[in-house]
Amino acid sequence: MNIDLIRADGRRWDQARSVRITPGCQPFAEGSAMIEMGNTTVLCAASVEEQVPRWMQGRGSGWVTAEYDMLPRATSSRRSRDRDSGRTASRSQEIQRLIGRSLRAATDLKALGERAVYLDCDVLQADGGTRTAAITGAFVALQLALESLVSAQKLDSIPLVCSIAAISVGLSNDNLLLDLDYSEDSTADADFNIVMTDAGSVVEFQGTAEGNPFPRQRVGEVLSLAARGLEPLFAAQRAALG
Amino acid sequence: MNIDLIRADGRRWDQARSVRITPGCQPFAEGSAMIEMGNTTVLCAASVEEQVPRWMQGRGSGWVTAEYDMLPRATSSRRSRDRDSGRTASRSQEIQRLIGRSLRAATDLKALGERAVYLDCDVLQADGGTRTAAITGAFVALQLALESLVSAQKLDSIPLVCSIAAISVGLSNDNLLLDLDYSEDSTADADFNIVMTDAGSVVEFQGTAEGNPFPRQRVGEVLSLAARGLEPLFAAQRAALG
Amino acid sequence: MNIDLIRADGRRWDQARSVRITPGCQPFAEGSAMIEMGNTTVLCAASVEEQVPRWMQGRGSGWVTAEYDMLPRATSSRRSRDRDSGRTASRSQEIQRLIGRSLRAATDLKALGERAVYLDCDVLQADGGTRTAAITGAFVALQLALESLVSAQKLDSIPLVCSIAAISVGLSNDNLLLDLDYSEDSTADADFNIVMTDAGSVVEFQGTAEGNPFPRQRVGEVLSLAARGLEPLFAAQRAALG
Amino acid sequence: MNIDLIRADGRRWDQARSVRITPGCQPFAEGSAMIEMGNTTVLCAASVEEQVPRWMQGRGSGWVTAEYDMLPRATSSRRSRDRDSGRTASRSQEIQRLIGRSLRAATDLKALGERAVYLDCDVLQADGGTRTAAITGAFVALQLALESLVSAQKLDSIPLVCSIAAISVGLSNDNLLLDLDYSEDSTADADFNIVMTDAGSVVEFQGTAEGNPFPRQRVGEVLSLAARGLEPLFAAQRAALG
Amino acid sequence: MNIDLIRADGRRWDQARSVRITPGCQPFAEGSAMIEMGNTTVLCAASVEEQVPRWMQGRGSGWVTAEYDMLPRATSSRRSRDRDSGRTASRSQEIQRLIGRSLRAATDLKALGERAVYLDCDVLQADGGTRTAAITGAFVALQLALESLVSAQKLDSIPLVCSIAAISVGLSNDNLLLDLDYSEDSTADADFNIVMTDAGSVVEFQGTAEGNPFPRQRVGEVLSLAARGLEPLFAAQRAALG
Amino acid sequence: MNIDLIRADGRRWDQARSVRITPGCQPFAEGSAMIEMGNTTVLCAASVEEQVPRWMQGRGSGWVTAEYDMLPRATSSRRSRDRDSGRTASRSQEIQRLIGRSLRAATDLKALGERAVYLDCDVLQADGGTRTAAITGAFVALQLALESLVSAQKLDSIPLVCSIAAISVGLSNDNLLLDLDYSEDSTADADFNIVMTDAGSVVEFQGTAEGNPFPRQRVGEVLSLAARGLEPLFAAQRAALG
Repeated sequence: MNIDLIRADGRRWDQARSVRITPGCQPFAEGSAMIEMGNTTVLCAASVEEQVPRWMQGRGSGWVTAEYDMLPRATSSRRSRDRDSGRTASRSQEIQRLIGRSLRAATDLKALGERAVYLDCDVLQADGGTRTAAITGAFVALQLALESLVSAQKLDSIPLVCSIAAISVGLSNDNLLLDLDYSEDSTADADFNIVMTDAGSVVEFQGTAEGNPFPRQRVGEVLSLAARGLEPLFAAQRAALG
Repeated sequence: MNIDLIRADGRRWDQARSVRITPGCQPFAEGSAMIEMGNTTVLCAASVEEQVPRWMQGRGSGWVTAEYDMLPRATSSRRSRDRDSGRTASRSQEIQRLIGRSLRAATDLKALGERAVYLDCDVLQADGGTRTAAITGAFVALQLALESLVSAQKLDSIPLVCSIAAISVGLSNDNLLLDLDYSEDSTADADFNIVMTDAGSVVEFQGTAEGNPFPRQRVGEVLSLAARGLEPLFAAQRAALG
Repeated sequence: MNIDLIRADGRRWDQARSVRITPGCQPFAEGSAMIEMGNTTVLCAASVEEQVPRWMQGRGSGWVTAEYDMLPRATSSRRSRDRDSGRTASRSQEIQRLIGRSLRAATDLKALGERAVYLDCDVLQADGGTRTAAITGAFVALQLALESLVSAQKLDSIPLVCSIAAISVGLSNDNLLLDLDYSEDSTADADFNIVMTDAGSVVEFQGTAEGNPFPRQRVGEVLSLAARGLEPLFAAQRAALG
Repeated sequence: MNIDLIRADGRRWDQARSVRITPGCQPFAEGSAMIEMGNTTVLCAASVEEQVPRWMQGRGSGWVTAEYDMLPRATSSRRSRDRDSGRTASRSQEIQRLIGRSLRAATDLKALGERAVYLDCDVLQADGGTRTAAITGAFVALQLALESLVSAQKLDSIPLVCSIAAISVGLSNDNLLLDLDYSEDSTADADFNIVMTDAGSVVEFQGTAEGNPFPRQRVGEVLSLAARGLEPLFAAQRAALG
Repeated sequence: MNIDLIRADGRRWDQARSVRITPGCQPFAEGSAMIEMGNTTVLCAASVEEQVPRWMQGRGSGWVTAEYDMLPRATSSRRSRDRDSGRTASRSQEIQRLIGRSLRAATDLKALGERAVYLDCDVLQADGGTRTAAITGAFVALQLALESLVSAQKLDSIPLVCSIAAISVGLSNDNLLLDLDYSEDSTADADFNIVMTDAGSVVEFQGTAEGNPFPRQRVGEVLSLAARGLEPLFAAQRAALG
Repeated sequence: MNIDLIRADGRRWDQARSVRITPGCQPFAEGSAMIEMGNTTVLCAASVEEQVPRWMQGRGSGWVTAEYDMLPRATSSRRSRDRDSGRTASRSQEIQRLIGRSLRAATDLKALGERAVYLDCDVLQADGGTRTAAITGAFVALQLALESLVSAQKLDSIPLVCSIAAISVGLSNDNLLLDLDYSEDSTADADFNIVMTDAGSVVEFQGTAEGNPFPRQRVGEVLSLAARGLEPLFAAQRAALG
């Protein structure tokens, strides 16, 4: 591994892109946040509904779920809208399931009570890392929505058990790279998406080697790099949440 | 008609909301513009494809068409995504057909040659007048995309025959109101959407009386008011286009 | 403008095609009417349901809505059925929204009570002007259905506030033409669809210039021509309604 | 079996409803016919396309197929359109497969050459026996379309090997009944649909006992009754075909 | 007719393929059976639900229905899954309607009470005769599920009025052939599917001549051959049901 | 962690369920295998097509992809078929993307040439671990299909770079458990799916904590346990492949 490596956009191997989180950008929503990481921009809105989906009713527990989509021209060539085919792209399905699971892990669903929070994560601009940016931004939108429930005296306290944020790591020619952009992602041998709590525990870890299988030993390094890389993201979340 | 009327947001009867057009907000697109009119925000992206749809091929003529959608939380309550039902909402269909027809009227399709421009109009925030804002903003995105074709020496000159912009007028208790916001729109007796050229000709005119039929004579007044109301929009387009 | 113009089928510029309205042609329906205008034939059926759609329930108000479709061989070449694509053609969506809005403007929805009337407008033969013929015919079907509610003592009086009918006008080489047939419609510079009450007020007015933008001044002439052209249609409605 | 039986509408057990076949009712189609049997009305249109479906190409053989649908208010209560669910009703699927198979059995597909005929059978009014009426009417539309190919000198002779027509028989309280109307159909123990050639051979025979299984011996009687009952239908076809 | 005919797989004209019915192969289902007839294999599962579909509620009667599908590679070339097109193949629709009707004819729906049995018939391997095998196998799954209701003391006795089984017959060069395999089926002049009770009555009879119309007289012979051919299937059912 | 733990079905914490792989069970397919792990049964079929999907054409490279589905009664209560909703369940989407990625990692796509292999993984019985069983079984089907290409002299050698197999690990009350069955899976704090090569490298690793975030340190133990647990699966693959 070459620790002197300089990446195409000038970053070091262990350097994430600059992050900016703007809260309240969709004012009709109970909570919202725009997250920008480099050239990736995701708009996250949290909507509270005062009932859970039918299959959850009567359990005394709440629900948190997510939807993920991209504007047609978020990418370098235009992709058609899912509504034309009548089905959510399978990549989007996979991503929104990941976002939903991650946010549920951060939430005390019992304390939320029988209400649901829907997180809409819409990518305005895509340059790699949209799923991890969506998780990091959606957490802010979720907390803002939950704070609004406390302000409205529907809840006594914010039903969150931890903060979560997410980042990607790539393995390319035996080098680990933090926070891949699109061009890095499309040439990596393996890529990893890591969702962690602010206490450093793992909520979700996915590693995929479409190119080359990777040795088990690399997994520990990946997790350490991710943990360090998530620090500025947790800081940006705290700043956005005031 | 009461010309001293002051509207809920402080505007006079013949006063449009302030407008801001930001070009280039989706940099991957050949042309793009964000338009804000009051609390309505629409992101417009123009994508050029070097072939026309199959049914147009071989005519030596180009095509311009539009798609319109809203983010789920652009509105005060969340609406589900069209992809879930597998069909574009009929309101969106009607609107995107209007946008497409209007932009085609501004374009010299023969001079465009056998290529197509797709205008994606996505509403980030909706407070009335989204369809007229989309037309005004999409024209900027379209011109920027056409300019990029000239820059790339694919075209000798910009194949536009005029500038177009659009605005709404309402009829409420016998008062005309320019540029309705959402609360005005939902209580008007009749509402009108007018698309005009910068020379004051009409490209599209739609008047609808779900409440009360209106006298034929009002149509002339509506058109005059719209013509005056469009002036700042044409100015904003020119500013955005540099 | 050339007022001596003779059109391809022998009509003068301000002459509509002959109209025939046959009531009761679908006897299972609460109201029905077949309308023929030249070679355009539309079958209109009104179905009463004793409840409104879910989103309208509890408001003490009724609902009137329309569906529009064509038989596959109503046109000179066969078009496939919407059921194959799983989505209503966007042109049909736009048209059925127009029909529904127009009929609602003629109806006292409060007096109708919490029931719904569905107008099915199916084009058996299409030679231009199907949307305006559908409105004119559907009004007859609607009134017949409402009369059946009075006969059944579910209503005290017919909850209509006016009669409505519709007609098209075209602008072609600076000539106005009343009631375009298909070949005229496909070459017009601009076309207008006008829905009016029998008192001469406007319910819906749509003008579209896919070819050339038109001067504001023409709009007044269009409305006057339409008002005169609608007289025989209102007469045919009255005859059909006995 | 009670041969003195008088049916609700006055018919004898072995008496079909009166039939009327009107050719040419959809003049844009290459062939068309409206068939009325009692209160059942079906509009049949034949469309010729100068190529076969992709899976048939290159075999030097033609194709004949059918689509079947009902207007929403053909029946005593309104049924929603298939396009809303995005799928053809399974009953319609079954019926249109039957119509297509039957017409193919009457056609010399080799002699037709690599072209396809689509038969659209749309029920305007339904009072039992729509599938058999559709077959009888569609045969007329098919022959007219094939005659048009001969007139256009695309074919030397009409590529039909026989005439076909269809009728239903019911078994009710051990009585056979020819040509069931809707009320008879819904109470029969078993019902049969028979498609035959004018020479008395069987093209398709379907017998269904949702109520009570029937003895094998009845099948012969059913076929004899159907053969006699089809005679006036073949006569009506010949009259319509001039 | 040549009674000395030996078929490609060595069978006589009136000889069915060997049959094997394995009960209980899907242990989570209330009843299940795998049926193998030659190289055709169908997995049949019966699921009991303690309510009927909405449109049947309140009649005091039960419901039995079926679904039919094939694994993509049940056939010699792969066919895509119905879920991709969002619609059940019309052939499957036709077949599952036949299976459902046949099983309802064997069931005392009143005695079943307001509950529903769903029969899932999934073809693992297809070599002709899948619809008849599905009926024969589904009857075993149905009876096992009904027995489980008796065991659970939800019913006093098994609400079946008869046993049913099904088999095909083909007509090929004027020879009758019992139980067609795929290659025989694709070249037959006419083919018949017969569903009978163990008492020899007919539940469903379908005869189709896509090739050549057949004389009425053959129908009696077809039914006799089917009746004999069904004997080993009823025996296999009894063995499977212990 | 309690290494003396005995699980509900008698297994030790580090003991997988018994596995059986039956090759050739769908003889029409180019390769097939049935895999049983405890009460989980998955039928895997590999279909070779001599062209790649359109978006891959012209790259000189092959494609391997997978589809995953369950029979309606594979589970303890019946689930409806995806074809009814017209969309693949999002869980199935996620799983089939995992299967496809994993098998591509084992394949030399360049050496495969411009042809595609489709792996159909259909769950006949589901008791946890269906996705991992599908991967293990699909690898056998894939290799058999590739061997058939070598036998047919379309390829010189089998284009596989390694063997792969998959297994799950759970974390429950701080205990690791190998190869979860359904009841264990639904109560685990975290679960992991691991796809490895026979050389012990990682192809895919997914860890999910819907219950409780887990410490980074556990990941190493999980991978070691999985590596040991995969040994009997690789042995069963080798046995099935002869």
